[in-house]
Amino acid sequence: MNKYVINLDLHGGDFAPGSVLEGATIALSKNPSVHFKLHSTKEFQQQYSGKFSSLFQKSDWVQSENYISPDLKPSEALKKDNRKSSMSNAIAEIKNNDNEITISAGNTGAMMAYSTVYLRTIENISRPAIASLFPSKNHPVCFLDLGANSECSAENLLDFAIMGSTYYQVLYPDVECKVALLNIGSEEMKGNHLIQQSHDLLKNEKRINYQGFVEANEITDTSNHVIVTDGFSGNIALKTAEGVSKFITDSLKKSLTSSLYSKILSFLLKNKFQDFKKSIDPRNFNGGIFIGVNGIVIKSHGNADGHAFANAIEFGLKCLKSDLLNKIKSNVSS
Amino acid sequence: MNKYVINLDLHGGDFAPGSVLEGATIALSKNPSVHFKLHSTKEFQQQYSGKFSSLFQKSDWVQSENYISPDLKPSEALKKDNRKSSMSNAIAEIKNNDNEITISAGNTGAMMAYSTVYLRTIENISRPAIASLFPSKNHPVCFLDLGANSECSAENLLDFAIMGSTYYQVLYPDVECKVALLNIGSEEMKGNHLIQQSHDLLKNEKRINYQGFVEANEITDTSNHVIVTDGFSGNIALKTAEGVSKFITDSLKKSLTSSLYSKILSFLLKNKFQDFKKSIDPRNFNGGIFIGVNGIVIKSHGNADGHAFANAIEFGLKCLKSDLLNKIKSNVSS
Repeated sequence: MNKYVINLDLHGGDFAPGSVLEGATIALSKNPSVHFKLHSTKEFQQQYSGKFSSLFQKSDWVQSENYISPDLKPSEALKKDNRKSSMSNAIAEIKNNDNEITISAGNTGAMMAYSTVYLRTIENISRPAIASLFPSKNHPVCFLDLGANSECSAENLLDFAIMGSTYYQVLYPDVECKVALLNIGSEEMKGNHLIQQSHDLLKNEKRINYQGFVEANEITDTSNHVIVTDGFSGNIALKTAEGVSKFITDSLKKSLTSSLYSKILSFLLKNKFQDFKKSIDPRNFNGGIFIGVNGIVIKSHGNADGHAFANAIEFGLKCLKSDLLNKIKSNVSS
Repeated sequence: MNKYVINLDLHGGDFAPGSVLEGATIALSKNPSVHFKLHSTKEFQQQYSGKFSSLFQKSDWVQSENYISPDLKPSEALKKDNRKSSMSNAIAEIKNNDNEITISAGNTGAMMAYSTVYLRTIENISRPAIASLFPSKNHPVCFLDLGANSECSAENLLDFAIMGSTYYQVLYPDVECKVALLNIGSEEMKGNHLIQQSHDLLKNEKRINYQGFVEANEITDTSNHVIVTDGFSGNIALKTAEGVSKFITDSLKKSLTSSLYSKILSFLLKNKFQDFKKSIDPRNFNGGIFIGVNGIVIKSHGNADGHAFANAIEFGLKCLKSDLLNKIKSNVSS
């Protein structure tokens, strides 16, 4: 049986390290061929090795001196002391090592800093992007860049399109993957200078199946599989979706719990509300990937619980098994 | 009693002209001092003057030769034939006429073309923006630009901040209006070049109460009242919110109607679902304003029904009564 090795940064995220260790336990029970390297400080080893003894016994322990706080400025990540952190160690571990990947729920900026400095970008790619899958009406949609690059060139967007398309096809080999560019209208002449330049490049690119523009209201109901955008707009879309989603579900909760009568009826509808919650829950697709660096680094959502973290591990395992990294490398070099 | 004159383009929008005429009837019953000028073709006069006879009797009729279709390219709006449309007439009507305003549910690009060409921008403003209010947890939030300018300078964003702040204070005179800049992080160094330049300008501007950056997930839960952004990002945020909102409410509906049992329980919760719907319904704030042109032009949402269109009229009436245009002019010239 092949061993797939996954490095886990036990820190970062609202419920870490408990959620990370729970997630790893769930994933291990479903995938006995996975092997973990757990990165944390001595103090946490002492605190958690009893409660998760089976996981600790089956895993390697890599001790770090400290860990990265969620509010660390990315520019501080590369300072000497921070390079001794669990996140730094976990990402450095996969350098020149295609058989291992790293997952962290921690500080995205710091993860990107370690990934680009330790792993470097792959040949022909000048800027990595953050890509993730989202629930949508017809099928999951891959959206990139989600915020790694606040300023992009048309060439960057072309790279993102090729990498995103490769990534989607690795995850869903039976789909003929369609790629679209996020814009503020669907007519040819719409959008800013970057969009117009990128549109010209994408139209003439044979490695992707380019469909033209898509508007942001279509992300949740589109026939396209990959949506490409610069990191500024991508992050705006991602965070707007998070905010609106929370606002709507909070408003629903408030209305349904405003009287005893409605509380009781809502309780009787509990299963239906769970179906609903599941159908819109982005944690089912937990795991943003840093695409374009020379290694697989996956960012779990900061508020992931054990179940969501296990999904990020399953996703990482899929990337390992399908040899995603080498497929991307070969597609961008062709 | 003062007469407030509102020009209505009867065309454009999914349910026009019925929704426009219904909205006007509702608004007139609540505000007897409002006077409408109805803009449409002879054919529609014949078709609707019977059903809405009371409204037609109390209003002026301005006959147009044609009307603008929702999918007309904005660049075509200024062609000779299209200048004979109801929208063109309705906007031309308020030129040099501060006592009248215009409302249309039609093609936004065409509306913007007529507004800038017929009315021109106000002194010291090089680019108009589209501003609208949105439901948010603590209070309504004014968001601009929603898509008039896909490329902006820092000076444009400063203009938007001053105009947005004036607009909010006219609508809510008791609020000490706080202004923020949309960004992809809250730290000082985050964002692209435009954001950094704009941040420096806004920080030093005495006419506004600037609070720094706000992230897109905070739009629905912020202590700020005005959120400034370029038209590309603003449109992405607006349309993402629309798409996610539809996706979530559709998913909820699907889950709750999947069995007879859940259908019955949901029916018993009808009032609560209506409260919920009302609390998140953007149509309660129907009416995007073209801010920065020499006249008040209001865009109703394309899918507005009579109730929502009446809200746009109420909003227009508030702009007229509070002399919004002259207040903006005086604030941008000071």
